[in-house]
Amino acid sequence: MLKFDFSALEKIPAGDGVRPEERQKYDRQLADYIKLFRSRGQGFLDALDDRTTLKAIKNFTAGVKGQYQDIVVLGIGGSALGAKCLGQALRKLYENNSFKPRLAVLDNIDPVMLAEFEHSVDFRHTLFLVITKSGSTAETLAQFLYFKSRVEARKLTWEKHFVLVTDPQKGLLRKLANETRGLPVFSVPENVGGRFSALTAVGLLPAALAGLNIEALLTGARKGREQSLKKKAADNPAWRLALSQYLLYKKDKKITVFWPYAQKLARLADWYGQLLAESIGKKVDRKGHRVEAGITPVSAMGVTDQHSQNQLYNEGPNDKLFLFLGITNRAADLLIPRDKNWHPKELAYLENLSINKLFLKEMEGTFGALLKQGRPSIKIVMDTLNAENLGQLMVLLEMSVAYLGELLGIDAYDQPGVELSKQLTRSMLKVRK
Amino acid sequence: MLKFDFSALEKIPAGDGVRPEERQKYDRQLADYIKLFRSRGQGFLDALDDRTTLKAIKNFTAGVKGQYQDIVVLGIGGSALGAKCLGQALRKLYENNSFKPRLAVLDNIDPVMLAEFEHSVDFRHTLFLVITKSGSTAETLAQFLYFKSRVEARKLTWEKHFVLVTDPQKGLLRKLANETRGLPVFSVPENVGGRFSALTAVGLLPAALAGLNIEALLTGARKGREQSLKKKAADNPAWRLALSQYLLYKKDKKITVFWPYAQKLARLADWYGQLLAESIGKKVDRKGHRVEAGITPVSAMGVTDQHSQNQLYNEGPNDKLFLFLGITNRAADLLIPRDKNWHPKELAYLENLSINKLFLKEMEGTFGALLKQGRPSIKIVMDTLNAENLGQLMVLLEMSVAYLGELLGIDAYDQPGVELSKQLTRSMLKVRK
Repeated sequence: MLKFDFSALEKIPAGDGVRPEERQKYDRQLADYIKLFRSRGQGFLDALDDRTTLKAIKNFTAGVKGQYQDIVVLGIGGSALGAKCLGQALRKLYENNSFKPRLAVLDNIDPVMLAEFEHSVDFRHTLFLVITKSGSTAETLAQFLYFKSRVEARKLTWEKHFVLVTDPQKGLLRKLANETRGLPVFSVPENVGGRFSALTAVGLLPAALAGLNIEALLTGARKGREQSLKKKAADNPAWRLALSQYLLYKKDKKITVFWPYAQKLARLADWYGQLLAESIGKKVDRKGHRVEAGITPVSAMGVTDQHSQNQLYNEGPNDKLFLFLGITNRAADLLIPRDKNWHPKELAYLENLSINKLFLKEMEGTFGALLKQGRPSIKIVMDTLNAENLGQLMVLLEMSVAYLGELLGIDAYDQPGVELSKQLTRSMLKVRK
Repeated sequence: MLKFDFSALEKIPAGDGVRPEERQKYDRQLADYIKLFRSRGQGFLDALDDRTTLKAIKNFTAGVKGQYQDIVVLGIGGSALGAKCLGQALRKLYENNSFKPRLAVLDNIDPVMLAEFEHSVDFRHTLFLVITKSGSTAETLAQFLYFKSRVEARKLTWEKHFVLVTDPQKGLLRKLANETRGLPVFSVPENVGGRFSALTAVGLLPAALAGLNIEALLTGARKGREQSLKKKAADNPAWRLALSQYLLYKKDKKITVFWPYAQKLARLADWYGQLLAESIGKKVDRKGHRVEAGITPVSAMGVTDQHSQNQLYNEGPNDKLFLFLGITNRAADLLIPRDKNWHPKELAYLENLSINKLFLKEMEGTFGALLKQGRPSIKIVMDTLNAENLGQLMVLLEMSVAYLGELLGIDAYDQPGVELSKQLTRSMLKVRK
């Protein structure tokens, strides 16, 4: 169960919040956007029904069960963040040796990181997932060439230690897969962009290999899809979230702080951060007008950042929307005991208190303080952190970004702004050689 | 060796950059600020000469050598971020069982995290460092009470498994230390606030126990202190950084993106994020005028966030200052090999290329693209990632925040804005009982 609470936006001064009459004007557009999405097709929504890929992933996972100690994603950006999010949210935080297979996502090319990683695994029991939709991502190909050579140097059959995830037709990796007998390959649907691909093979394959329940993820995701296509605004949290962000953006709140109170959702905040940043950060709108649109995502963590960022959030510029995310029932709770020898009166309020209750009340206190300071917040409450709720939330967030793109009149699915830095890098490398 | 390069600020349009004549006007104030710091005393600078504490930490560390497999910090905010930063920057990224002791920093009270952590360690070989300057931080005391009871439940002598780090005179923990024979305790200097305490016992004790060279850290830190008190602006990077941030703040760049190209510096970005956010985020200035000052810190990672945030950074609102941090000589480098069977021409530019070179050129390309888009960046270059350079950089960043506070006319050392949420939480807990 997921609940979105937008009520705080109405309780603060109109210049920093959202009045019902403001949003109701826009609610009339919702049906048109839904029609647009249906006619244009949203690849990432259609992919949730892809039973063929699901079956292939399950078969592959069953076939290799017990063979690998380490599952390693070679990928970056949208090819990495979904797996990081799912792996952290639904597995143990402190892995020990009894918890196998381990899941590592190498989304950087820092040579120190790669070298230290290499020393921490045994290639005989390692499976690399090479994930790049285009098949030409420089960082991922560099990693692939390097680790392939290391695997071969150990006299291992490399095709048993690599899986490719790439475009169904195009690109270098697809060609390699076509030419290489025994090399497993999975497809990223052609009409799904990297940052919307967490619930395709890109995220589902590592998730399944790491032992997660991908059926439940998809069940939740389809629930999120249904919700986010509801024509009644009050029943459509994806729309309500997008509209709140849009109206607050026009009131100069160009930062969204995603603030889960759950250590396992740190990477969810990063996943959402890419989704929001790359989709909405656009120089021109669909008509070609220069708009320099964009919302800067900030990943926070509760309660930790109450002791790091809260001073700024309460007293600094009122330029942020806060997205709190709390979980009511946790897999574990602990009781703060009363110490038999040491019990000064200053500790009385903590003694025999559930740590989960303290955790939740700290979120309420922080939420309440921002409200009193006239700073806009939205609260999402999840009853339990599990695959179904997570899948649902991810699709709701994806769809909120889709709506936000339409409200701003920009193309939420391209990324023209990253080309220049790639060109400059390439030209510097050419000079060198 | 550390080098700060501010030249890009002069190469972009004046409205988004910093012209020499703009900053030179302020350079005249530098000598006065230095005089002010010297007369008022900067506790975190004085602490760098505290040989007594250094010796006590070294003696304690030598005395317990080999006794503990896990060093665990119980602390939050300024009591945690220094240890996280130092531990990540100067140790291995992928610890395996041959690398002992492990270092964990539990800076949250998520009960799931605490429960899973408990199952991952053996209390017989675990040392908890309870770090809170005030001695009354709710989260840290809750953790302490919980783990103390668990240690005692295993029939262990708890005084052998806990060390306190707290105020030299005041507070509950100091009182407990005074009353408990055999319980080790270290002091946080009275005039050093939490977010400036990384190079006191707060950060140095966990660092030393984790095997780091704290002498070298302090040597670098003292170098940073000397540099940041130089009266000639051109020789004082702390001042130049602060002044750049100040002038750009007045041009509506109220976000600073700290962007290291080094996986081991992710936590440095978070440490700096607290320093900047809590010090500068202030509702009123020293004269009591309402200013709502504040710079929102964003932690980025190179090259990873080129594939996650770069679209926004290049095309979204021009509201950010980018602080790049590169390392020229790395502890490891890897060569991207040419595959003997698979070498399409599209891969030629990667073959036989040093990954470190690719890494550095990607930073240059990203830096260059932002420059072309007229977005302000500062580049910091470190020759090697080691304790001395890190200590130096941390003090330079601390002093840049001190200067920035003076330029903005605010008190950089208090945090009045976090009280309200604490009060609300406390009152909700009272109702319950």
